[in-house]
Amino acid sequence: MLCPTAPCPTKIEINEVAPRDGLQIEARFVPTDDKIRWIDALSTTGLRRIEATSFTSPKAIPNLRDAAEVVTGIQRRAGVDISVLVPNLKGMERALACQIDEINLVMSASDSHGLANLRMTPEQSLEQFAAIVEASQGSGVFINASLSTTFGCPFEGEVPETRVLTLVEQLIALGIQGVTLCDTTGMANPAQVRRLCDAVLERWPETPFTLHFHNTRGMGLANALAAWQAGINRFDASLGGLGGCPFAPGASGNVCTEDLVHMFAAMGVDTGVDLDALLDVAATLPTLIGHDVPGQVVKAGKSSRRYAMPKR
Amino acid sequence: MLCPTAPCPTKIEINEVAPRDGLQIEARFVPTDDKIRWIDALSTTGLRRIEATSFTSPKAIPNLRDAAEVVTGIQRRAGVDISVLVPNLKGMERALACQIDEINLVMSASDSHGLANLRMTPEQSLEQFAAIVEASQGSGVFINASLSTTFGCPFEGEVPETRVLTLVEQLIALGIQGVTLCDTTGMANPAQVRRLCDAVLERWPETPFTLHFHNTRGMGLANALAAWQAGINRFDASLGGLGGCPFAPGASGNVCTEDLVHMFAAMGVDTGVDLDALLDVAATLPTLIGHDVPGQVVKAGKSSRRYAMPKR
Repeated sequence: MLCPTAPCPTKIEINEVAPRDGLQIEARFVPTDDKIRWIDALSTTGLRRIEATSFTSPKAIPNLRDAAEVVTGIQRRAGVDISVLVPNLKGMERALACQIDEINLVMSASDSHGLANLRMTPEQSLEQFAAIVEASQGSGVFINASLSTTFGCPFEGEVPETRVLTLVEQLIALGIQGVTLCDTTGMANPAQVRRLCDAVLERWPETPFTLHFHNTRGMGLANALAAWQAGINRFDASLGGLGGCPFAPGASGNVCTEDLVHMFAAMGVDTGVDLDALLDVAATLPTLIGHDVPGQVVKAGKSSRRYAMPKR
Repeated sequence: MLCPTAPCPTKIEINEVAPRDGLQIEARFVPTDDKIRWIDALSTTGLRRIEATSFTSPKAIPNLRDAAEVVTGIQRRAGVDISVLVPNLKGMERALACQIDEINLVMSASDSHGLANLRMTPEQSLEQFAAIVEASQGSGVFINASLSTTFGCPFEGEVPETRVLTLVEQLIALGIQGVTLCDTTGMANPAQVRRLCDAVLERWPETPFTLHFHNTRGMGLANALAAWQAGINRFDASLGGLGGCPFAPGASGNVCTEDLVHMFAAMGVDTGVDLDALLDVAATLPTLIGHDVPGQVVKAGKSSRRYAMPKR
C-alpha cells in the first residue's frame, strides 16, 4: 500500500467515456455502425460502465446525432452498465425510451463555465436536475451528476472547495445517486485532489463518487493515484485519451483508459479490465477517428514488454 | 500532506539532465555555442544541478564530443552544481581537469542492459567505479552513481529488489556519495517506487538518493509523486521530456522538468525553480533541436492560466 493509513481500494471500476466525451469534439462524424461495433468491442473488455452517447440536440453536438440508434443498436452485456448524458427533460425522455442503465447529468461548479458550456448557471442547472430526477422516478435508472470545473475554472480560476461541497450537498439532496468530480481542463494537482476526495468521502461515505481527470498538464495519472489513495474506486477515462475541452485549446485530452488501467494493474489493483483486450480496441482508434491519439501504452507496450538484445 | 504518516518533503531539488541524457540520442549535433547559451539560461532558473555533458568517447556519443568546451565555456553560478557523466578513468581525468562539481557514474542493475548499453556486467562496472573513486580522492568532487534498470530491464524483465539493494550497498561501500535509482525504460509503477524508496531510505537514511523516471507509459509524474511521498527530495528530469532509451523504440522520453516542477509547485512544494523562467527556456527547445518535444505545460500553459470567455 502506498499510504498505509488510507483505505487504498483493492478494486476499482472504470467508466469509459470516449464514445461520448471523446467523440463529441472530434472533427468528423463517426458512422453509426462503426460506433456500435466499437462500443460492442469495448463492452467485452471488462469495463464496468460505458458512457455511450449524449441525448442532446443534434444541432448542438452533430457528432452524437445518432444517440438513439447507437444505444438501441449495441449489444447489452451483464455487468456493463450503459450510461448516457442527458442535458434536459426532453433528452431524458428520449434516453428512458432506450432502456439505458444510467443517466449522467452535467453542470459546472463555476458560473462562467456553466454559461459558456451549458448556457446555465449552476443554480439553473440544479433546478433543471430537480425536474429530471422527478421524471426518473420509478424508472430504475441510476442518476449520476458530473460536476465540471471542480478543481478550477479556465475562466475564473480557483473554485473554492466550500462551493464544491455545497453543490455536492445540493445534488445529493435532490436525489442524485452518484457524483462525478471533474477536472474539466486539467487544472487539478494531487494535493488538491487528495484534499477534496478526503472531504467528500468523509462527509458522504455512502455516495458513489467518481473522479474524472484530464491529462492537460501531464498530471492525469498522478491525480488518479492521489484520488485512489484517498479511497476513490471509480474513475472516468477515455480510450486513447480522446477528448478535451473546447475552451482550452492546445490542451491534451481526458486521462487515457488503457494507460490508467495499465498503471493500476501494475500496482496490483483489480480494475476488472482485460488490458490486452482493451489495448486491441485502443489500437483501432486511429483508423476509427482518422488521427493519432495521446495514449502511450498502446505505443510503448505494457511495462512487461521484453525487447530482444541488440546485435553487436 | 498526501500521506500524513510519511515525511513528504517540503522542498525538492531538481537535477536537469537534458544537456546530457536528452542530447545524447538526438539525431543532430547541437552546436557548442548553442549548448553553452542553453545551459547558461538553464542555470539562471533555480535548478539545483545540471548534468551538462558526458566525458565519453567522441565515437560512442558524437553529440557530446564537445564535452570539455561546453563545461569550460558555461558560466558558473553559486548554488548550481555542474555534474558530468564519466564512463571510465580516462573520462574521469578529462572531467577533473574542467573543474566540475559532481561526477555521475552509470551502471546497470541487470546484466543484459549493462552488456547492451555499457558492454559491462554490473560486477565489471563496480570494479571500474572503485578505480574512479580512488582517482577522485582529494578532488573535492561529489561522486554519484546512477543505477539503470532499477525498476525493470527491457531485456530481462523484473529486477529483484534484493539485487538492487545489494548493488546500492556495494556502491556505498565503494565510497559513492549519492545514488540515483533510474527507471530507464519507464517500467516502474507507483507501488513499486514506494516500496523501493521506503527500503533504501530506511536502510541508508544519510545517503542522498535521486529518482530518475521516464514517462514511457505516462506514469512519470505519478511515480515522482510516489517517491516524494516516501520522502525522496531529489529528482532527475529533462527539459521538454527530451531523452529516451535506444533499446526501447517508440517510447517517449525522460520525465519532463517543467511538468514535474509545475506539479510540485502547484502542490505547494518548494522546487527552488522559477517556473516561468524555466518555461521560457523550454519554449526555445524546438528551435534548438529541430523538433517538437513531449512536454505538456509549455503547450497548455500553467494550471493558473485564464482563458477569455468565448463570444456568443
